[in-house]
Amino acid sequence: MNIYHNTRELKFREPFGAVFKGTDVVLKLFADDEGISKVSLIINTKTKINEEHVMKKEEDCLYSYVLVPDSAELYSYYFVISYCDGKTVYYGPKKGRVNGGGMTFSEPVKTGFQLTVTKPSYSPCWYKNGIVYQIFPDRFARGDDYLENAKEDFSHHLNGPKRALTDDWLKKPVYEKDSLGRITKWEFYGGTLKGIIDKLDYIKDLGATIIYLNPIFDAASNHRYDTADYMKISPLLGNEKDFKDLCDAAKKKGINIILDGVFNHTGCDSIYFNKYNNYDTIGAYNSEKSPYRDWYTFNDSKDGYESWWGVGDLPAVNEKNESYRKYIYEDPDSVVRHYIKEGAKGWRLDVADELPDSFIAGIKKAMKETDPDCVLLGEVWEDASNKVAYDDLREYFLGDELDCVMNYPLRDNMIAFLNGEIDANELAERFMSLYENYPKDAFYSNFNLLGSHDSKRLYTSLGGNVAHIKSAVTMQMCFPGVPVIYYGDEIGYEGGKDPENRAAFDMSLSKNQIMDIYKEAIALRREDEIFLKGDFKPFALNHNVFCVTRQYGARKVRVIINRSGDEDYDFYLDGKNCHVNRYETLVLGDVL
Amino acid sequence: MNIYHNTRELKFREPFGAVFKGTDVVLKLFADDEGISKVSLIINTKTKINEEHVMKKEEDCLYSYVLVPDSAELYSYYFVISYCDGKTVYYGPKKGRVNGGGMTFSEPVKTGFQLTVTKPSYSPCWYKNGIVYQIFPDRFARGDDYLENAKEDFSHHLNGPKRALTDDWLKKPVYEKDSLGRITKWEFYGGTLKGIIDKLDYIKDLGATIIYLNPIFDAASNHRYDTADYMKISPLLGNEKDFKDLCDAAKKKGINIILDGVFNHTGCDSIYFNKYNNYDTIGAYNSEKSPYRDWYTFNDSKDGYESWWGVGDLPAVNEKNESYRKYIYEDPDSVVRHYIKEGAKGWRLDVADELPDSFIAGIKKAMKETDPDCVLLGEVWEDASNKVAYDDLREYFLGDELDCVMNYPLRDNMIAFLNGEIDANELAERFMSLYENYPKDAFYSNFNLLGSHDSKRLYTSLGGNVAHIKSAVTMQMCFPGVPVIYYGDEIGYEGGKDPENRAAFDMSLSKNQIMDIYKEAIALRREDEIFLKGDFKPFALNHNVFCVTRQYGARKVRVIINRSGDEDYDFYLDGKNCHVNRYETLVLGDVL
Repeated sequence: MNIYHNTRELKFREPFGAVFKGTDVVLKLFADDEGISKVSLIINTKTKINEEHVMKKEEDCLYSYVLVPDSAELYSYYFVISYCDGKTVYYGPKKGRVNGGGMTFSEPVKTGFQLTVTKPSYSPCWYKNGIVYQIFPDRFARGDDYLENAKEDFSHHLNGPKRALTDDWLKKPVYEKDSLGRITKWEFYGGTLKGIIDKLDYIKDLGATIIYLNPIFDAASNHRYDTADYMKISPLLGNEKDFKDLCDAAKKKGINIILDGVFNHTGCDSIYFNKYNNYDTIGAYNSEKSPYRDWYTFNDSKDGYESWWGVGDLPAVNEKNESYRKYIYEDPDSVVRHYIKEGAKGWRLDVADELPDSFIAGIKKAMKETDPDCVLLGEVWEDASNKVAYDDLREYFLGDELDCVMNYPLRDNMIAFLNGEIDANELAERFMSLYENYPKDAFYSNFNLLGSHDSKRLYTSLGGNVAHIKSAVTMQMCFPGVPVIYYGDEIGYEGGKDPENRAAFDMSLSKNQIMDIYKEAIALRREDEIFLKGDFKPFALNHNVFCVTRQYGARKVRVIINRSGDEDYDFYLDGKNCHVNRYETLVLGDVL
Repeated sequence: MNIYHNTRELKFREPFGAVFKGTDVVLKLFADDEGISKVSLIINTKTKINEEHVMKKEEDCLYSYVLVPDSAELYSYYFVISYCDGKTVYYGPKKGRVNGGGMTFSEPVKTGFQLTVTKPSYSPCWYKNGIVYQIFPDRFARGDDYLENAKEDFSHHLNGPKRALTDDWLKKPVYEKDSLGRITKWEFYGGTLKGIIDKLDYIKDLGATIIYLNPIFDAASNHRYDTADYMKISPLLGNEKDFKDLCDAAKKKGINIILDGVFNHTGCDSIYFNKYNNYDTIGAYNSEKSPYRDWYTFNDSKDGYESWWGVGDLPAVNEKNESYRKYIYEDPDSVVRHYIKEGAKGWRLDVADELPDSFIAGIKKAMKETDPDCVLLGEVWEDASNKVAYDDLREYFLGDELDCVMNYPLRDNMIAFLNGEIDANELAERFMSLYENYPKDAFYSNFNLLGSHDSKRLYTSLGGNVAHIKSAVTMQMCFPGVPVIYYGDEIGYEGGKDPENRAAFDMSLSKNQIMDIYKEAIALRREDEIFLKGDFKPFALNHNVFCVTRQYGARKVRVIINRSGDEDYDFYLDGKNCHVNRYETLVLGDVL
């Protein structure tokens, strides 16, 4: 048997990658066997079950079918080859893949080749062309208001774990926990919004044009993912005026603000749930009569209610509840709309996997109604185009929901490559797969992080290897999508996961070797539109050397990373010799 | 300016390569400049002068036009980019190229990108799938009839240069010439058609399925390109029955015969011209009343008539003469038809460059009428798709003329590469250009020679370097097109050009190192249809290492040649390490 299809070759599938619905997609299968009686294309989607299309035989043993997808959803396809003698052979992707070349099977294919079909949707230019600086608000910078703010803040949330300000800004963060692992004290460092305003020049000088703030609303904890009141800025951070001032001051420096929307759960210590009776409101926990009672699901579990991953501090919200939806995004002064009106230019949706598609679509609609130039970013850790969460194939990228997602695959795979866990070929395969599966606009809007408040620090992830940090940062800045710098990574902050990755920012370290790496890589990106618009091709030059080419018209840039500390290599690329030293990262421009 | 087009990328031109007329050809130009007011495609052919088509702007700065060529001819195209400020820029191929990527010019482009447009035309399968053994008839094998044949032959052509049989079969061929360089004696070795019949098993065992015979008609010289009588087999070679016996015997062994048609000129010592009065006919040279007078052009030159490249022995024929056309191919028993009926399966046209297109088309038509399964091969030394001869752009490949041509570019470029005259990148470029320019069927029917009666011996061309011979022969057998073995090359015959390349064949040498190389390479080709049908991709792995991949469906074979005798190399190909020793030729199979 000699049967072949490859999603990445225009000869077999055209156009490349995700398409808008209504586009002609030419699919071809090569099959050179004797006695073929029929070749069929089988389509599966959420709405189409084993839809069969008989393919037409062309010259050169190619069977073709022009598919015109009529719905924006994830298409999965495979081929069935029927023979005159009654035999049937199936052709689908290789094990663990959804694209690239395939293989034959003796049974119908379970996971077909992926074809992402979407409605047209575009993220805003300011976002796509920007560079993000992510700030964990309690730890970035104290303003001169922090003591006063703290006083106000610590006057509430009185029941529940202790809350206190640390004296020592540079103290290593730790959690005080009881014998069951529950946090008994929230230590605050006292970063404020005014502190951020004071440091805008630093952020601007670094080259960032967007600030993504972790949650800033009132909450009992120092991370503030346990919202106490969506409509109130955390008193320790400042007040509504401070937030507006931040937006205004940032805007003047060409910087937009994106907020963190934590809508899957609230804090138990909140005006909505009020577990600790810190509020005068009738919380859902207090009474069945509470106006918020229907937001939550009470049951006979240990805590007596559903919570996020069983964490009793974070009671889960039912996002299908109409009153909740109104509060979050439907009402004219709903949370989503309110802060956009105050000056925010977008939202990042925490745990998007756990938000219903209709809820995300509602937020998108409300946000765009308020300001069409906003961006909606989702927290997804894997390939978001085919993410299955709770047995449901998610629809983030079909046009009505997310503009883009946090690109953890970039971070995880780049680090895995540099640390020797996967080779350059596998790295290229994984990036290629994302490039193919994501709507082009979403891929070019990817939130390209190398570290976050939820991951180990980049420096630590790479074992402090400065050459590897340079490789990762250079690749990040040359990659399609929006580079994201997690505060402190640019000065080589060390640390494992939470709480170590949330140490307070030490401005006095802002001139060091790592900063030089960042500055050089950021300058590269800012000086050349090829990194914003260019075609993308990842490939392995050998198992240690990874290369990405960006091509825009007649211009081509190659980014070459040799992860090996032991071996130099020579390559011959497009007719030219190229030498890469051990641990070297090369960026080479060319005109075709 | 950032403007780009590349004939080899489906993104810019689709489909790849030559097309049949009526095919949709999608042409795209990338242009990202500010202030573009119009982008046009300019077409030139023999019949279309600067035909302008305005291109449509698509997304991603691509301008497109779907060209549907309505005539089978060579299309040449370039682009004109007009700006709002009145500026105009032109985009065409790089200097000396007609395909690949291009460049901008400040003036209209002289030589555009080539698009070969043809009528559908296919050479016969037996030919396309075969291997040719070329025989220079006087030098391959004496039959037991040779002395008797010689007696008869030498009884005519009595006037003119001396003619004699050599005693010593293995004597090195030389020419006896006078002080003016004119040959004064034709030395014959006495090869005969019966001799070839006796050696058919050798040819079959070698793996050949086709014999191409240099001229076999009566002629004064030993090369017989100076035809004396097209309708008479050279008496020294045998007679008409011997020819039919040869065709029959060969056919029984699965071997077809191709003849050499020398129709641009005759011998001066011929029944048609009769310069030496060796014939009773009234030759054109003898009298203005001669029935052949109009075939030739008499003038006041030294010889008094037009001849091939001024060689008085070879008076040129006017191929537009009706009586000549009738004689050569139109009449029911014309030369072309006669020998096909006798058993030949095709003709090779000597100096096709000097035959009018209509003459070649007439031969093709006559031949196919007589036996549609015949092949027409032309002697062309360069890229035949865009060959200009005597200021005329030839039409060999448009569908009505040649099935294929002698692929001297394969020989010349392969040898130039192995001898260090061009690098692997240039070699790949030249092969890619042929692949693009030739109609696909013509490319897969290329008469792939490495040596001929008109070139230095392969062994000598490669300085006797056995590794290089292995590289050349292996590449030849793995190349798209029909491999041709010039008798003696398979046993490492040495020799410069004529007469050295025409030494008599020494069957006693048929077991040697070179023969082993041929046998192995021929076995490779015969065992795998991928070499007959597979896609073709030539590229450089570095300046010393040339690679060709053949891909057919899910199967791929790589042929890798390291010409260097000093350096081994390591490569990483499709995720696998590959080591190539100095002087090594690798053939690696893979399943995708």
